[in-house]
Amino acid sequence: MSIISLTTDFGNLNGFIGVMKGVIWGIAPDAHIADITHDIPAQNVLQGAYALWRVVPFFPPGSVHIAVVDPGVGTQRRPIGLKIGEQQFIVPDNGLITPILIDSEAAGLPIEIVHLNNPKYWLPQVSHTFHGRDIFAPTGAHLAAGVPLQALGDTIDDPIRLDLPRPQKTDSGWLAHITIIDVFGNLTTDLPAKLISNPDDVSFQLKEHKIEGLVHSYGHRQAGELVALIDAENYVEIAVVNGNAAKETGAQIGDIIEVIVNA
Amino acid sequence: MSIISLTTDFGNLNGFIGVMKGVIWGIAPDAHIADITHDIPAQNVLQGAYALWRVVPFFPPGSVHIAVVDPGVGTQRRPIGLKIGEQQFIVPDNGLITPILIDSEAAGLPIEIVHLNNPKYWLPQVSHTFHGRDIFAPTGAHLAAGVPLQALGDTIDDPIRLDLPRPQKTDSGWLAHITIIDVFGNLTTDLPAKLISNPDDVSFQLKEHKIEGLVHSYGHRQAGELVALIDAENYVEIAVVNGNAAKETGAQIGDIIEVIVNA
Amino acid sequence: MSIISLTTDFGNLNGFIGVMKGVIWGIAPDAHIADITHDIPAQNVLQGAYALWRVVPFFPPGSVHIAVVDPGVGTQRRPIGLKIGEQQFIVPDNGLITPILIDSEAAGLPIEIVHLNNPKYWLPQVSHTFHGRDIFAPTGAHLAAGVPLQALGDTIDDPIRLDLPRPQKTDSGWLAHITIIDVFGNLTTDLPAKLISNPDDVSFQLKEHKIEGLVHSYGHRQAGELVALIDAENYVEIAVVNGNAAKETGAQIGDIIEVIVNA
Repeated sequence: MSIISLTTDFGNLNGFIGVMKGVIWGIAPDAHIADITHDIPAQNVLQGAYALWRVVPFFPPGSVHIAVVDPGVGTQRRPIGLKIGEQQFIVPDNGLITPILIDSEAAGLPIEIVHLNNPKYWLPQVSHTFHGRDIFAPTGAHLAAGVPLQALGDTIDDPIRLDLPRPQKTDSGWLAHITIIDVFGNLTTDLPAKLISNPDDVSFQLKEHKIEGLVHSYGHRQAGELVALIDAENYVEIAVVNGNAAKETGAQIGDIIEVIVNA
Repeated sequence: MSIISLTTDFGNLNGFIGVMKGVIWGIAPDAHIADITHDIPAQNVLQGAYALWRVVPFFPPGSVHIAVVDPGVGTQRRPIGLKIGEQQFIVPDNGLITPILIDSEAAGLPIEIVHLNNPKYWLPQVSHTFHGRDIFAPTGAHLAAGVPLQALGDTIDDPIRLDLPRPQKTDSGWLAHITIIDVFGNLTTDLPAKLISNPDDVSFQLKEHKIEGLVHSYGHRQAGELVALIDAENYVEIAVVNGNAAKETGAQIGDIIEVIVNA
Repeated sequence: MSIISLTTDFGNLNGFIGVMKGVIWGIAPDAHIADITHDIPAQNVLQGAYALWRVVPFFPPGSVHIAVVDPGVGTQRRPIGLKIGEQQFIVPDNGLITPILIDSEAAGLPIEIVHLNNPKYWLPQVSHTFHGRDIFAPTGAHLAAGVPLQALGDTIDDPIRLDLPRPQKTDSGWLAHITIIDVFGNLTTDLPAKLISNPDDVSFQLKEHKIEGLVHSYGHRQAGELVALIDAENYVEIAVVNGNAAKETGAQIGDIIEVIVNA
């Protein structure tokens, strides 16, 4: 029983995901398919990259992750396949894989990358506008069905990398950035929790809002209160208890949060 | 082949559901997973409870229903597991299971409840903010894979119960409440259809709108007409034929509908 | 391992799809289920018909496609089952199948149609408002599980057909219509690409916008540019590169695009 995940900006309106599943099951009839999200903002490769990066560590070894946020479809941008540790990926070569690649390189995982240029594993007819259906779904399904990565195309070692936001060190702490706004309006940042040694000795300035300390979870403060806490991926997050921090602060992706360590 | 259903307020934007499926299939690789809804309004336990209650009777015996609407995540609120008749449940102990519990007690079904306090069946690391991934998904998957409910934790008998709206008897009929507004704008009420003995001898007053009698189905009246009928779960529903009753009447969840029996 | 697809206007808010899956897996426990879309505009049979028509050719032989956009639920409209070539369908008899029927007749595929009037394959209790759960899901599941189409009811040969928009020939080319607006705001038309013999010798007039020639794909022009291209189903499409043509032109389904062949 193989497992395939799908991450796209295709939405759920038009059957783009359904048709990819039809293609996949025609090749890998035993595959389980998990939708990660299809609501990545259109053509937003960075948000797609974060979504993929957050879920992959929780998938069983051998899973195949097909991710398609692909403004360059039909141009010379390469479709690529990767094996990183025990996880496998099928993506356009536009940086969608960057956060996973960086963490995996830091962890010393083995990494293989191929250009998916063997048309034997594509659909017989390839459109210019829907490689999700015509290239990514069938190559991912063949990979899940046991075709070795190396059979899918030529080995490469120069995948395109996004320039990811990083927290900047300051005299009093860091300037962090909002990287993701989730469905609850919680604001995830690029500040790893491990950088904060004492949860009581830190404060956060987001626009005119000052937040003192890190709380354990949402339910430890009153409804409506703006709090900072450690999110489920071990990064600092700003939230409103039983509320929507994005709406209440007007914060947007990319906004700066000043982190002050009260030494 | 085991079956798991998922009901949450997590939305489909951020991969919260996809990562739960990755966790589940790592433990129960054969499980089929049905999404019930992930669009419960944030932290609205009552709406989550209704959604779960409406679908469970149609699932095969042995199904495991994981439902997570969980404003108390990371506090002392208990995660619980239940076996009710032939159906199994994994939920936070906040009343999500109340409507099913009430109906099941009325039907005399056997009920077992445990506090999911055996960390052997959780993920090795449990975050403070995402028990859906770290506790509910893995315990549900173990249950689906054949671990007995009693192994998941200590037996309890005091699950938290929501105070559900109920129709009030009046001299001329009932005061019913709108309990659910569906995607078509249909207004479901808490009035069981069995309380209405003659479908022609009843009328409904919703704000300034008066509706005479129950119709058989939408297509039995003209488009645009406001009608009352019996919904698919055998409760009285107000609808606009080929239209949206919520928009056209401005009705909201909790609003009162006066039911008059024309004796 | 059988495959079932689901196409509806039920949305994902209320568990209508989840409960259908519960019913299906109670009958066909091995079935894979692909959601095509559940966001067809309410009661819009034509949009449902297009969605279904675009995905079916990519599904493996033997798949069962359950599609429910059904304003006539609970009236005398017939539920029908079809075998068309190697694909199978369960739909209300209201024209949802028309585009597939027309293409299949043109291709000379064998077609069998039955009225799903054998209650043996329905749920024991059938509501007046939710035949998706009570008739379409169980009959589709039985079909996927191997029950022959002819067992599901009486053969018929007069399915209801929608009157589909068609491009009109003019002296200088065609008047085409916008048939689908996708999640990216791309405007699909009813003009088959094969009618355009030379992609450089054609222009398109959409309201005040003139577009010269067909481009290969989105990425071959600058962001923000309005372009025409051939979509993934081989029809002419109008798009804005990395943008939203529907928003930028205000175009709507049914609007006319004048196609001028520069002879």
